Amino acid sequence: MPRVKLTIEYDGTPFVGWQRQDNGPSVQAALEAAALAYCQTEIPVTGAGRTDAGVHALGQVAHLDIPRDDPPEKIAAALNAHLRPNPIAVLKAEIAPAEFHARFSAIERRYEYRIINRRAPLALDVARAWWLPMPLDAAAMHGAAQVLVGRHDFSTFRAAECQAESPVKTLDALNVSRQGEGIVITARARSFLHHQVRNIVGTLKLVGEGKWTARDVESALAAADRAAGGQTAPAMGLYLVGVGYP
Amino acid sequence: MPRVKLTIEYDGTPFVGWQRQDNGPSVQAALEAAALAYCQTEIPVTGAGRTDAGVHALGQVAHLDIPRDDPPEKIAAALNAHLRPNPIAVLKAEIAPAEFHARFSAIERRYEYRIINRRAPLALDVARAWWLPMPLDAAAMHGAAQVLVGRHDFSTFRAAECQAESPVKTLDALNVSRQGEGIVITARARSFLHHQVRNIVGTLKLVGEGKWTARDVESALAAADRAAGGQTAPAMGLYLVGVGYP
Repeated sequence: MPRVKLTIEYDGTPFVGWQRQDNGPSVQAALEAAALAYCQTEIPVTGAGRTDAGVHALGQVAHLDIPRDDPPEKIAAALNAHLRPNPIAVLKAEIAPAEFHARFSAIERRYEYRIINRRAPLALDVARAWWLPMPLDAAAMHGAAQVLVGRHDFSTFRAAECQAESPVKTLDALNVSRQGEGIVITARARSFLHHQVRNIVGTLKLVGEGKWTARDVESALAAADRAAGGQTAPAMGLYLVGVGYP
Repeated sequence: MPRVKLTIEYDGTPFVGWQRQDNGPSVQAALEAAALAYCQTEIPVTGAGRTDAGVHALGQVAHLDIPRDDPPEKIAAALNAHLRPNPIAVLKAEIAPAEFHARFSAIERRYEYRIINRRAPLALDVARAWWLPMPLDAAAMHGAAQVLVGRHDFSTFRAAECQAESPVKTLDALNVSRQGEGIVITARARSFLHHQVRNIVGTLKLVGEGKWTARDVESALAAADRAAGGQTAPAMGLYLVGVGYP
């Protein structure tokens, strides 16, 4: 019964999040329903990261055990056929070692947060980016972001519901760059606290507006108190871009 | 009563097209409703190009006469406020000369057609691009496209319902380029026949698949017969990018 690694893209808008929940459709439940339809047996699907409601993925990773000897391309095509019309696409299926675990084997998560910084509201990118009409200084945001890189107690950027054992995480990279009216924030770490990226983005927004300096971000981090940080940026701008394995 | 030029972005998905019609919501009707709510009087809105149902715009241009002396930024903001929740955004409003006409003053239209060329179906780009899973040779498509550049009888690429006086048009540029799994086709001309870009894209697809050569495209053009061309590519991949004025 081969273990299969899936790389998955999804539009988070219609889902309560990655994880199966009682209160609405989840990406995990849609994948498990597709696996059931394909294999005629219930198969749990385990994801690398539990994206929140409205958060998108360009490269979520999951694993499942398929009780058939189909080639990977056929597995991907069968799951995609059964996933319709959900906005979820299996980009790749690969046969993995039996000990591969999408969540516990992962050594890196990469997220991207998209802001559209213009006066006009969004038409084509509704539910795909955070619309911020005030002028933002992306270079200042990038500078202040460097304060957060490294190993820190990230309690200031941690959701109250976060289930991580410790608020100490190592943020390997945090970059902010402007591309026309778009501002993209990329974050890379072994793992993240709940809402960590969105809380960081909401704080960097204050820097972009000129309300905060890098020094203020430093003080907020040192406070180790969620109340010292900026707002939680909306889910619609966040993308799980990829997950790294050894 | 100043004439105002608007530059407009919209998601064409929920609309029957630019033009006001009896059978459903149109972009024009939404803009006219916003102008009525803003100015308390009926104001016709004239667009540069009549995009079809499902076709998007990044830079549609329209004009209207505003019976108030508001500055352009205020006009844009007021229209945007009244356009909600339609996926239509006024990117810019400018005071234009009284003789400015969005359609008749235009000397150039630029369109872009987006294909996503990968095995996996679309999740984030549903209704934003044409999904084509078979391998496509974008360089061959670009080469064949050059056959169509210049002044020709484009009857092969003209919809039966086209109301243009003549099928002769001058296509100033037609470029095909690959960017990762995306293929972008850009087209530039003073004006286009109805469905001209979509019919050209459907024909270039045959070249991309290796079913047709540039010579076949040449023969199809020479036939001056719609039946000699390829399929009409779906509306969802087409974007009106911009309109040029002297």
